[in-house]
Amino acid sequence: MNSGLPLLDALVAHFKKFPGVGEKTARRMAFSVLDMTEEEVKGFAETLIKAKESIGFCNRCGHFAEGELCSICRDKRRTEEVICVVERPGDVFVLEASGQFRGRYHVLHGVISPLDNIGPEDLRLDALKKRVEEGKVREVIVATNPSVEGDTTTLYIARMLKGKGVKVTRLARGIPLGSSLEYIDTDTISRALEGREEV
Amino acid sequence: MNSGLPLLDALVAHFKKFPGVGEKTARRMAFSVLDMTEEEVKGFAETLIKAKESIGFCNRCGHFAEGELCSICRDKRRTEEVICVVERPGDVFVLEASGQFRGRYHVLHGVISPLDNIGPEDLRLDALKKRVEEGKVREVIVATNPSVEGDTTTLYIARMLKGKGVKVTRLARGIPLGSSLEYIDTDTISRALEGREEV
Repeated sequence: MNSGLPLLDALVAHFKKFPGVGEKTARRMAFSVLDMTEEEVKGFAETLIKAKESIGFCNRCGHFAEGELCSICRDKRRTEEVICVVERPGDVFVLEASGQFRGRYHVLHGVISPLDNIGPEDLRLDALKKRVEEGKVREVIVATNPSVEGDTTTLYIARMLKGKGVKVTRLARGIPLGSSLEYIDTDTISRALEGREEV
Repeated sequence: MNSGLPLLDALVAHFKKFPGVGEKTARRMAFSVLDMTEEEVKGFAETLIKAKESIGFCNRCGHFAEGELCSICRDKRRTEEVICVVERPGDVFVLEASGQFRGRYHVLHGVISPLDNIGPEDLRLDALKKRVEEGKVREVIVATNPSVEGDTTTLYIARMLKGKGVKVTRLARGIPLGSSLEYIDTDTISRALEGREEV
C-alpha cells in the first residue's frame, strides 16, 4: 500500500509479518492503533519489548520461560514419570487446556524434515535422551502433529529410546469430537476404521 | 488465558484489543512476536509509537495526516470542485484504490446514530458546510456505508447543503461486481431491481 503516509505504511508492513495477516487485515490493525489512546499504544509497545526481552526457553524442557525453568518444570506436584514431547511451545498450551495431562513436557522446536534440511541434530532430541537416562521417566508420549514429518520424528524417538526402559506412545488418531463425518478427509476416515474400538 | 507467563498473557491481552482478533489469533500473534528477532520487535514497537505520535488528522478534510494537511489536500492537481464525504479515514484508501476519483475528501469521523448518542454536532459537518460555502465546490458525493445511519447522514447532508448551489449525490446501490446472485441478500436484490439500468 502507498497511503502517502510513510509511518502508516511502515506500520502496515509490520503487521503483515504476522501469520495469517494479509494487506487488508494489516491495514485495519494499523487504523486501530491510530484509534487507540497514546497511553494504550505505549503500553502495547512496552509489553512487546519486555515480553521479547524476558521470555526465553526453559533450560530443562524448552518451553517458554521467564527465567531458568518454566512454571511446569518448577511445579513439584507434577509427575516426572511421564514426558509429553511436542513440536512448539504453543502446543504445550493446547495440551494444558485439556486439563488431562499432569506430567512434564519436552519441546523439540521443530520436527525432522529432510526437505527443509532439518535433521535430528537440529532438534532438542539429545536433551530428551538425557532426561530419560536420568531414570525417573516411565513413559514418553509423542504429541507431534499428524504429518509425515511428525510421524518420522515419532519413529526416530521410539528408536532412540529403545532399550532404555520407557514406553513410547503417541496420541490416538481418529475422528475429532464434535465434527461431522461429512467434512472429514478420507485419510482420517481410513485411520479411524483401522483403529476402531470395541464398545 | 493463564500461561504461567504474565508477560505473555499481557501481550495476548493487547492483541485481543484489535478488531476481529480472538483468543486463538491473539495467542498465535504473541508466539510470533517471540519468534521474531529482538531487532524486529524493537522496530515494531518504535513504529507503533512513532506512527501514533506523528499521525494526526488533516485540518481541512479530517483524513490522516503527518502534519497540518494530508497529502490529498496538498495535491494541487486534484480538483476542488468535487468533495467525497466518508465516515472514516480508512474509507479514503478504499476509494483511492479504485483510481476513479480525482477530487478531495471530507471525513466525518462517524455517522449520525441516535442509538449511540451521536448527533450531527458530533461529526465534522460544520467544517463541510464551510468548505462548500467557500464557493468552489460543485458536487458533494456522500459515500457513507449503506446502513440506516449512513443513509440518515446522507439525507442530513443533502438538507444542510440545500440552496448552496451544490449537487449532492451518493454511490450507486446494486449488485457488487464479481459476486454471484445466489449469495446476495434480498434487500440488495430489491434495490438493484428498482434501480435497473437500460442496456
